[in-house]
Amino acid sequence: MSSVARSVKPVGQVLAFPLRQRVSAWVSSSALTRRGLTRPEEDRRSLPGTVGCKTFCSRMALREGLVFRQLYESSSSTYTYLLADSESAEAVIIDPVLETVERDLMLVNQLGLTLKIAVNTHCHADHVTGSGQLKRRVTGLQSAISRFSGASADLLLAEGDNIPFGRHVLTVRETPGHTDGCVTLVLGDQSLAFTGDTLLIRGCGRTDFQQGCAKRLYDSVHQKIFTLPDQCLVYPAHDYKGQTVSTVGEERRFNPRLTKSLEEFIDIMNNLNLKKPSKIDVAVPANLVCGLHDL
Amino acid sequence: MSSVARSVKPVGQVLAFPLRQRVSAWVSSSALTRRGLTRPEEDRRSLPGTVGCKTFCSRMALREGLVFRQLYESSSSTYTYLLADSESAEAVIIDPVLETVERDLMLVNQLGLTLKIAVNTHCHADHVTGSGQLKRRVTGLQSAISRFSGASADLLLAEGDNIPFGRHVLTVRETPGHTDGCVTLVLGDQSLAFTGDTLLIRGCGRTDFQQGCAKRLYDSVHQKIFTLPDQCLVYPAHDYKGQTVSTVGEERRFNPRLTKSLEEFIDIMNNLNLKKPSKIDVAVPANLVCGLHDL
Repeated sequence: MSSVARSVKPVGQVLAFPLRQRVSAWVSSSALTRRGLTRPEEDRRSLPGTVGCKTFCSRMALREGLVFRQLYESSSSTYTYLLADSESAEAVIIDPVLETVERDLMLVNQLGLTLKIAVNTHCHADHVTGSGQLKRRVTGLQSAISRFSGASADLLLAEGDNIPFGRHVLTVRETPGHTDGCVTLVLGDQSLAFTGDTLLIRGCGRTDFQQGCAKRLYDSVHQKIFTLPDQCLVYPAHDYKGQTVSTVGEERRFNPRLTKSLEEFIDIMNNLNLKKPSKIDVAVPANLVCGLHDL
Repeated sequence: MSSVARSVKPVGQVLAFPLRQRVSAWVSSSALTRRGLTRPEEDRRSLPGTVGCKTFCSRMALREGLVFRQLYESSSSTYTYLLADSESAEAVIIDPVLETVERDLMLVNQLGLTLKIAVNTHCHADHVTGSGQLKRRVTGLQSAISRFSGASADLLLAEGDNIPFGRHVLTVRETPGHTDGCVTLVLGDQSLAFTGDTLLIRGCGRTDFQQGCAKRLYDSVHQKIFTLPDQCLVYPAHDYKGQTVSTVGEERRFNPRLTKSLEEFIDIMNNLNLKKPSKIDVAVPANLVCGLHDL
């Protein structure tokens, strides 16, 4: 056995590139450590390093006994969330999408969950909700949406309402601005917030249609979301760059829009010049009735 | 204030659809409870329900002090993972993609992390790795890949090697089958496994090119992944249906391919008749040299 150390011939940009090293069973522990690897029996000590992530980049430790799944619908870049109590199996689904109802139901069934409530964070303009279809398929399932959404649902949500599932609870915070009926759903221990289109990762929902109002969105984020703990994970209704999660601390510090003054924010939002969502004329009327006109 | 109870006129399929109810501040607690909601001051008791999720659907509680991010590259449906120690800020990135290096570096910088190692779970055929570009941009960053991958890297990984970052460690399990040089990276406490293309959510990597071998993949999964705890979260290199995570217990029970006998599995894999990956002729040669021919 021997070390395979290859010489490297840089082409183009020349870099200080360490010799490549074969790290296999015979390599001594000290050699491994020099290369950044260790064997199982070695002590692993914290190395000094930059700090900074500690205050705004949480571990993902969620409350014990919480079943949690993030799901994605690619054509509208929408995130759906499934939460359940691992003991009682009671489950809540947030922002289900019509096209992915089968996938979501298969998961619910495989996990042995009982879907109790399908919540929409608002009346979406970019996709048709799956809540109506879910109601057709799941006996006893109730739909829920803000009382200010203008939409029909079994449960019309107000500030402070709690949506319980087993030992857990989601609390409603009204966060209008993208629409009048936007809510943010916060897990009881404030470790998770489902922000809908109010707060996106390093962004926010548009405010140029459906009762949109930049000032209201700004106030909602600052008063109802940025007041949550730094470590609270932010799960939005959409992401367009492959980001899956953020934290309140990060958004408070790095959100390129919401770190601005109110005046600057309003100016930004009034000059986005976005195209009308392609599905709005279908999605909004459908979402006013749980996504299904014939339900 | 009054309750808004609307009658529903079902069109088409008729369903037992409860009257929609306005749930706002005035509604009594008992009425709220009947509708599935509670007010903050109420006790929340576990309700009886089906069980089953308990054994194979873990909470996402990860080791204390672990920074963790799942990132997505949509054109190749690839997941990149960023892990770090919240104290030392030492970070490891798994399966970075060339097209999303800027996004990932911005996140690393915002979180105040020090990127130490970029690991590829194998020599990818569907996208160009970002590890070479990351090496250009991050002083001291080392690339890592299996010693059986045929690719050059600073660290050539073998079974049992540990990749430490602060107080945490990723342990290498060799899981060939999709390619000869596939590895699964398991967090020290076995709460997380990054399975590359060896095990996908309710699927697995193809075995019809790049030294692929259905029998080896089957054995790898059964011997090296399905032997992990049921609750261990499975984070694959890809998903094509918007699923973000699974568990070992779920895959052991529900994976439509790997729950079959070896003979049935080989038969399935030999008859997939998949198209050649569109990027393979560019990606594989590039990935043999960290994604950059001129590095």
